[in-house]
Amino acid sequence: MTNRPSQNDGEFGYIYVSTVKDEAPDMNQTFVTELTKKSEDLSRWYTDVILKAELADYWMIHGFQVVRPYGYALWENIQSRLDARFKATGHRNAYFPLLLPGSLLEKEAEHVAGFAPEVAWVTAAGSEELTERLAIRPTSEAIFGTMYAKWIQSWRDLPLLLNQWCSVLRWEKATRFFLRTTEFLWQEGHTAHRTDEEARDETMRMLEIYRDFVENDLAIPVIPGQKSEAEKFAGAEATYTIEALMPDGQALQSATSHFLGQNFARAFDITFQDQDGVRKNVWTTSWGLSWRIIGALIMTHGDDSGLIFPPKVAPIQVVVIPIPGKAGDEQAVRDAVENARRSLAGQFRVEVDLSDRTPGWKYSEWELRGVPLRVEIGPRDVRNSQAVLVRRDHREKIPVPLANLASGVQDTLDRVQTSLFQRAKAFLESRVARAESLADFQRILKEEPGFIVAHWCGSAECEAAIKAQTGATIRCLPFREPREAGVCIIDGKPSEKRALFARAY
Amino acid sequence: MTNRPSQNDGEFGYIYVSTVKDEAPDMNQTFVTELTKKSEDLSRWYTDVILKAELADYWMIHGFQVVRPYGYALWENIQSRLDARFKATGHRNAYFPLLLPGSLLEKEAEHVAGFAPEVAWVTAAGSEELTERLAIRPTSEAIFGTMYAKWIQSWRDLPLLLNQWCSVLRWEKATRFFLRTTEFLWQEGHTAHRTDEEARDETMRMLEIYRDFVENDLAIPVIPGQKSEAEKFAGAEATYTIEALMPDGQALQSATSHFLGQNFARAFDITFQDQDGVRKNVWTTSWGLSWRIIGALIMTHGDDSGLIFPPKVAPIQVVVIPIPGKAGDEQAVRDAVENARRSLAGQFRVEVDLSDRTPGWKYSEWELRGVPLRVEIGPRDVRNSQAVLVRRDHREKIPVPLANLASGVQDTLDRVQTSLFQRAKAFLESRVARAESLADFQRILKEEPGFIVAHWCGSAECEAAIKAQTGATIRCLPFREPREAGVCIIDGKPSEKRALFARAY
Repeated sequence: MTNRPSQNDGEFGYIYVSTVKDEAPDMNQTFVTELTKKSEDLSRWYTDVILKAELADYWMIHGFQVVRPYGYALWENIQSRLDARFKATGHRNAYFPLLLPGSLLEKEAEHVAGFAPEVAWVTAAGSEELTERLAIRPTSEAIFGTMYAKWIQSWRDLPLLLNQWCSVLRWEKATRFFLRTTEFLWQEGHTAHRTDEEARDETMRMLEIYRDFVENDLAIPVIPGQKSEAEKFAGAEATYTIEALMPDGQALQSATSHFLGQNFARAFDITFQDQDGVRKNVWTTSWGLSWRIIGALIMTHGDDSGLIFPPKVAPIQVVVIPIPGKAGDEQAVRDAVENARRSLAGQFRVEVDLSDRTPGWKYSEWELRGVPLRVEIGPRDVRNSQAVLVRRDHREKIPVPLANLASGVQDTLDRVQTSLFQRAKAFLESRVARAESLADFQRILKEEPGFIVAHWCGSAECEAAIKAQTGATIRCLPFREPREAGVCIIDGKPSEKRALFARAY
Repeated sequence: MTNRPSQNDGEFGYIYVSTVKDEAPDMNQTFVTELTKKSEDLSRWYTDVILKAELADYWMIHGFQVVRPYGYALWENIQSRLDARFKATGHRNAYFPLLLPGSLLEKEAEHVAGFAPEVAWVTAAGSEELTERLAIRPTSEAIFGTMYAKWIQSWRDLPLLLNQWCSVLRWEKATRFFLRTTEFLWQEGHTAHRTDEEARDETMRMLEIYRDFVENDLAIPVIPGQKSEAEKFAGAEATYTIEALMPDGQALQSATSHFLGQNFARAFDITFQDQDGVRKNVWTTSWGLSWRIIGALIMTHGDDSGLIFPPKVAPIQVVVIPIPGKAGDEQAVRDAVENARRSLAGQFRVEVDLSDRTPGWKYSEWELRGVPLRVEIGPRDVRNSQAVLVRRDHREKIPVPLANLASGVQDTLDRVQTSLFQRAKAFLESRVARAESLADFQRILKEEPGFIVAHWCGSAECEAAIKAQTGATIRCLPFREPREAGVCIIDGKPSEKRALFARAY
């Protein structure tokens, strides 16, 4: 760990927090003059908006971040909506330890090879050296596997469907807020089953839960499919993924679900006595989604004015802003705002901005912070018994009678949710190109980068060659591609289906 | 870290999980013949009931535990009810990093002296040695303090009221499930204020929230008060506590709230520009409650048959058990049970036990697991259009018309909640004794151990002398004790108020 001064260049540095005090902000300034335009520099905009909207901040140690209340409220909403889906499908939460002996990681050979380079090691406690070094969990297959071997005895104990919400550590070199952090919060599901089929069904069920959640709640369209051998999880038989596309045409792996076969069952001796009296290895799965999805959310929906949060997970869904009029109108406006707050509070996550800033300043602030709907109430509105709803996504103004405010808000939030998804979906589909040759592939990546669907023979060599020559990797073998006879764009050998390629986060 | 075979003697050992497979259980056996009697051996009962009810299990590393789904559901209920109280008082959640540089811990001198002996150190990542070793957080004052110095600029930024739910590590020698574990889950609140008074008010507000939660939701009576200098948090100006009393007469510190004065503000340079234009240090507080409270819950309410959970936090509040009759009655019973489930499901956490075990086996199992209310439905009940409610705490049987089942259940759960508290409260009060001399003090501890209220001059020497001679420590200077002129039971010097003593967990 080395130290450099605090920086703010879109990439985490080796930083120490500055203790220099800035001047108190000038109260008359516009809120966000300095926000980089998303359309001009996505990477810098991304860092700017996270810092200015106070979603997260740098920590003193390379690659670690602090998630501030506004960012954490988003994570809480993500957690609660996803957790409800897990519980509805019979999963239960538990908590497994942070540390595991190094020897345990090594039980599954591919698994340790995949994770050992990223593991943080605890070697001392108090003033004593430990006799065996302990790993901070980079993922918990080895930990769950050890306990499953103890808990599972009979076919009656199956399936065992557990999940945990926790933090894990993977020592990363190049890091970005949310997208790639050394410590991250996530959930990891680990399940054990009696049969191959049942474990495969579980793997696909969880992938579909992720797809449904990410598309319907986060309004991020994705392409589901299977990872190639080179890209699959260390120790898995098969890894499935949902892949999103960011505005710069780079893919972002949004969640993964792994069919682990009997690899971990053999490595950790997880057996059960089946109904036929025979002792057998279980079949296991694991699946995870991390706060990385917040990075996808920010990039997918935001614009030059800042964040745009889909209503279903927005920390604040509605901000009510009074428009001051002449001195005599003040009380009437204040009463109308208070009535509006009351009629919305039970049903929505509402903020009322009664600060002494100008309305323009408030608009900018709440736009920056991504609140999907603004409710303006001024003297004229009070006289007309109405409020004006302003959508964050395209600033359409919708007058609504105060008497119907709650239903007008619900209706508009629903429209925002739908239209964010449709806009992102249209963008994604406009950036799925079909390449018939390597030249084609390279031209597309240069002219309008995005997903490229191309024939690939299935060999690791051709996969590596494409990566070396274009920087693009196989994101998945997408379910939506039909079987189609073709030839690999690298070696010309026969291919039965196209793979989905992209440069990726 | 050394290794010993797995053990189960009420104390965590240095253990590795056994991989020996037990035989599949004999399905005809009674569920819990082997449970130690609580009345005979509290310590062994405690470990037995945790393992048998599947609240938690041992992990391979000394002092770590795995919290199983049933135990974690309890923690989730504790979290959600306490979190709602935090949010209702203006606190917001955030997430701060797991690791901090060793140098940061050292900024507050008393703080590092208190925690350094318990810290786990990360010294390597992947194959590289770190240039500065990193501590796994034992608590996060230093981490929050560092960020608060950056975020707080003006009096407008105050108060800053944050909380986090996370895991922390304190390397412990003697460990017990929940009560003392090397890694534990907790919440830690950290707040910064403009004035001394405001910070003191916050400290007391949070103590009162803990008292209210622990007494009303967990049904554990407590005595609130202030810690002595020797027992206060490392770095605090004053520590406040709520102290519970376990059935063996030992006290259990259940939550603490610390007034930190300006100690951390000075150490971490947390300053703000006040309304008068002068730059000043903030005043801070911190407060925490951990999964240790689950240990208190288990010991306070359980009995020889197993756990008893207060309804407000019980993972399962009601279990419905069909009583099979003659062959012809089966369908009618099954229908009535299904109707009962439907009428209860929206309002309560309900389990229906349709397994092929005998009713007696089911009674034992759900009693062991602490479900506060059982609903029995048999053929005769169906004919009488009733169900029989059986309270877990004293097994009273209450017939309730099926048409009023939900209200009958609600009413009975309310009674169980109240009576668990009253029973524990009566026990606590019966074990608060007043000692007028050291001989008195020692006699009480021998005859009927519990809280002892005695005069103490206020000196650290006398406090240490009592501890050395009796094993009892000052649990707090209880708010409920009036000022009263007396003399210290050790050195005979004047005392103005009695302290609360006990041996403690």
